[in-house]
Amino acid sequence: MSIMFDEILTEPEVIKNAIHANEKKVTDIAAEVKKRKIKNITIIGRGTSDNAGLCFKYFAEILSGIPSGTAHPSVTTMYGANVDYSDHLFVAISQSGRSIDTLAVLSQANKQGALTVAVTNDATSPLARAGKYHLDLSAGVEKSIASAKSYIAELTVLYMLAIALSGKPLMPVVYSFPQRVEEAIELLPAIAEAAEQTKDLNNFIILSRGVMQGVGKELMLKLNECAYTFAQFYGTNDFMHGPYALVEEGVNIIILAPDGECSENFRDIATRLQLLNANVLTFSDNQQLLNLATYGVKMPSMDNLSCTIAYSVAMHLFAIELAKQKGKNPDAPRNLKKVTITK
Amino acid sequence: MSIMFDEILTEPEVIKNAIHANEKKVTDIAAEVKKRKIKNITIIGRGTSDNAGLCFKYFAEILSGIPSGTAHPSVTTMYGANVDYSDHLFVAISQSGRSIDTLAVLSQANKQGALTVAVTNDATSPLARAGKYHLDLSAGVEKSIASAKSYIAELTVLYMLAIALSGKPLMPVVYSFPQRVEEAIELLPAIAEAAEQTKDLNNFIILSRGVMQGVGKELMLKLNECAYTFAQFYGTNDFMHGPYALVEEGVNIIILAPDGECSENFRDIATRLQLLNANVLTFSDNQQLLNLATYGVKMPSMDNLSCTIAYSVAMHLFAIELAKQKGKNPDAPRNLKKVTITK
Repeated sequence: MSIMFDEILTEPEVIKNAIHANEKKVTDIAAEVKKRKIKNITIIGRGTSDNAGLCFKYFAEILSGIPSGTAHPSVTTMYGANVDYSDHLFVAISQSGRSIDTLAVLSQANKQGALTVAVTNDATSPLARAGKYHLDLSAGVEKSIASAKSYIAELTVLYMLAIALSGKPLMPVVYSFPQRVEEAIELLPAIAEAAEQTKDLNNFIILSRGVMQGVGKELMLKLNECAYTFAQFYGTNDFMHGPYALVEEGVNIIILAPDGECSENFRDIATRLQLLNANVLTFSDNQQLLNLATYGVKMPSMDNLSCTIAYSVAMHLFAIELAKQKGKNPDAPRNLKKVTITK
Repeated sequence: MSIMFDEILTEPEVIKNAIHANEKKVTDIAAEVKKRKIKNITIIGRGTSDNAGLCFKYFAEILSGIPSGTAHPSVTTMYGANVDYSDHLFVAISQSGRSIDTLAVLSQANKQGALTVAVTNDATSPLARAGKYHLDLSAGVEKSIASAKSYIAELTVLYMLAIALSGKPLMPVVYSFPQRVEEAIELLPAIAEAAEQTKDLNNFIILSRGVMQGVGKELMLKLNECAYTFAQFYGTNDFMHGPYALVEEGVNIIILAPDGECSENFRDIATRLQLLNANVLTFSDNQQLLNLATYGVKMPSMDNLSCTIAYSVAMHLFAIELAKQKGKNPDAPRNLKKVTITK
């Protein structure tokens, strides 16, 4: 297959390692957040780490009610502003731990007295050493240029951190994550068929809502990287505020629609798209939503937060399969190296 | 021309009205922020209002150092979470003041004791009445479906609020905004020529950085709405973390590159794109950057925050001109109504 696929196969083990390595640390961080009466979270990351960070925003706000915002590095590194993160939990995510801009903002937050947490896959990296706490992804060396296993490890440890902040026990949901990955990998034949059906299409519009937005953005990134395919992610409601004008017969849309809080919203948009004769590929466990699609992949049913794990794996597999169908090598995204350093 | 264009011509007057109507109110809000020792801002909005909100994040963080995050409505309206905004300045932006989701989150923030500010173009709307303070856009009835003048009024009052929060005087920069609009309108012939040059292209990648990100997203939205053109905005550094793989000979890229803090960054990406034979349209006042472009529009020079006004007007004009060149009516985006209500 491919290096990326081989590494996806190791993800159940990666998740177990990530849980083991960070179980105590997330509890320690939560205790310090409580002690310091910290009421705000700031998140920073680039690329896949930014997508995992977006999932974390939802995890943290839904589970613990702590408002979670994003730091944009240029405010510090380009404009020289001194944004006051002194009373924040500051979470910096970088697989390599070598992003210059991410490190610069975390260092400033450190100086201000913020409670800083570095999430990296390299305990010896500058970012890992600079964070007051380090959550070690423990994913092993990632050879695939387009990150998959380290992203899944990020989702896992960030989910653990959000649960710890809520004061609830980590078990049993986190321990179900390896099973979620295996269920997603079992979908490979259906996903390969979906890729075959869509291999001649371009300009994908990807829609989802809520906690799945980070996953939708991750699919967009992987379609860009692995399959050189133009794709644009929109939250379903943001889509109605303008971009909906793009829809005409034959427009290609992918909907990530786990059954749950947002089902009515997904049903509304899927019905509208069917009336406009769009070409819709839906990933869902809701049969009514699958019936409204041009082509559907039936996903296993799971709760509204752990579904992000299964859908992420399915999206990575879809990107790999689409790349192969288009004759591209998902292991060799053109123009890119493994570590991207920006400032 | 078009309704949208006619309304753009009124923007110098719109800005003067917006300044007059809100000069005292932003000072009052800043005084209360100081009195209450508020150290965090949360912003909420959809579509163009979300783009103006993104500009406000940069204005506020750069000018006042107050961390500014975004509220995603589904956390409250779908997942039923009770995110604690009690010690936040909560800024809700909706031109109609009738967005159900925006109103729901502001109402919750009110109950928690947040200092809430509604920014709307309708003083009788539910959102205007629900905010502890109301910043009235005072733009007059907007007939164009794709918002232009009310977006410029949003940028103006949000910029005023950011300056007030910084404790600096509002003058003279805000009073230069009408002049900035007029300078941008004078560029119409050059912008029309740029649209003519690009009318047969599709799949635009839009790049910028820093405070201009909100403007880049606004261009993306207007290209979607008015010209039915697929476009994807990326911050330049986010672009290097993956989507850069999309670049090959003939790929269409628009760079918004005002001379200033990010010039080195823009020069780096423009040079790389030239080496890869991409098709680059650059809006800039930096001649070196224009020389690296396939086609350039020479913008007037201005400071790093008020340039958002001039570039926004230029982007709206470009979308209108591109729509016309493609035989579309920018006043009648298909599938859309003036007021979009989402929950």
